[in-house]
Amino acid sequence: MKPLYLLPCVVAALVSLVFVMISGAKGDTKSKDAAPIYGVTVPEGYRQWELIAPALEAEPLDELRAVVGNSMAIDAYRAGTLPFPDGTVLVKLAWKQMRSTEFEPATVPGVATTVQVMVKDSKKYAATGGWGFGRFIGGKPVDEAQHQTCFACHEARVRGHDFVFTRFAP
Amino acid sequence: MKPLYLLPCVVAALVSLVFVMISGAKGDTKSKDAAPIYGVTVPEGYRQWELIAPALEAEPLDELRAVVGNSMAIDAYRAGTLPFPDGTVLVKLAWKQMRSTEFEPATVPGVATTVQVMVKDSKKYAATGGWGFGRFIGGKPVDEAQHQTCFACHEARVRGHDFVFTRFAP
Repeated sequence: MKPLYLLPCVVAALVSLVFVMISGAKGDTKSKDAAPIYGVTVPEGYRQWELIAPALEAEPLDELRAVVGNSMAIDAYRAGTLPFPDGTVLVKLAWKQMRSTEFEPATVPGVATTVQVMVKDSKKYAATGGWGFGRFIGGKPVDEAQHQTCFACHEARVRGHDFVFTRFAP
Repeated sequence: MKPLYLLPCVVAALVSLVFVMISGAKGDTKSKDAAPIYGVTVPEGYRQWELIAPALEAEPLDELRAVVGNSMAIDAYRAGTLPFPDGTVLVKLAWKQMRSTEFEPATVPGVATTVQVMVKDSKKYAATGGWGFGRFIGGKPVDEAQHQTCFACHEARVRGHDFVFTRFAP
């Protein structure tokens, strides 16, 4: 019967092992899911964040979009704070535009396409206006070449609005 | 000096009077801001509610829209619960579609137009599928004639989705 005394130890060891494996796996997933260049990831719970504004993007993308923000983003928008403070996170959701079968004049979200993220960290991303960029399809970041295009476009077009296109919809 | 003893009573009476006037005024405002037929009002804090889906409505309205819902609405959408439970509130925000001056393929929200509200109360609104409707411009309800059109359209087109057009955008 003596070996039975060891049972709690064995169980504890196995539980620890499983925990280590799980956290290891999580770590792996995170680094695989981080955008090239910037290391930006899709933030937890963003689908519950407050709406900043919807938008439509014409052909060839032909997408309905919605930009949401974390509470720091929303506070900055409401107060008109520019530049946005460090910790601001903006997420743009996008779906193919699809004609409603129930109401002909309307188009509604079809299949989800990209999720695009901007993270403000004025030190970490000093070379790109204080913003880190991430573009994701199905939760996975797109390639480095695509990420190289983000800042140039934001810089050329919306430098005067802290490199952010979206305005708060009244 | 004797009348001074009355001062607290006078102050209390004046304070009460002011309270009565304020609550009376509030009551007036509320009833003036309630939709005809249904008595639906614009819910407090709806701009912070979670996004259900954006949409586009073509000419002649030419509007970008976003439907948000209270937590009961969101829970029902996520769980696929139909009919929606009593207490569900849906709000549709709408803005004129405006071409972005910063990114030509995009249209963005212009001036806000209507705010439209659906409130589920299966007893109170039994005659209209359990839903009360409200349409507001600048915080004020539109006229009774417009409110008479709401249910007929929802009934004809989306009876199979508990009279609600909008689906949750993935």
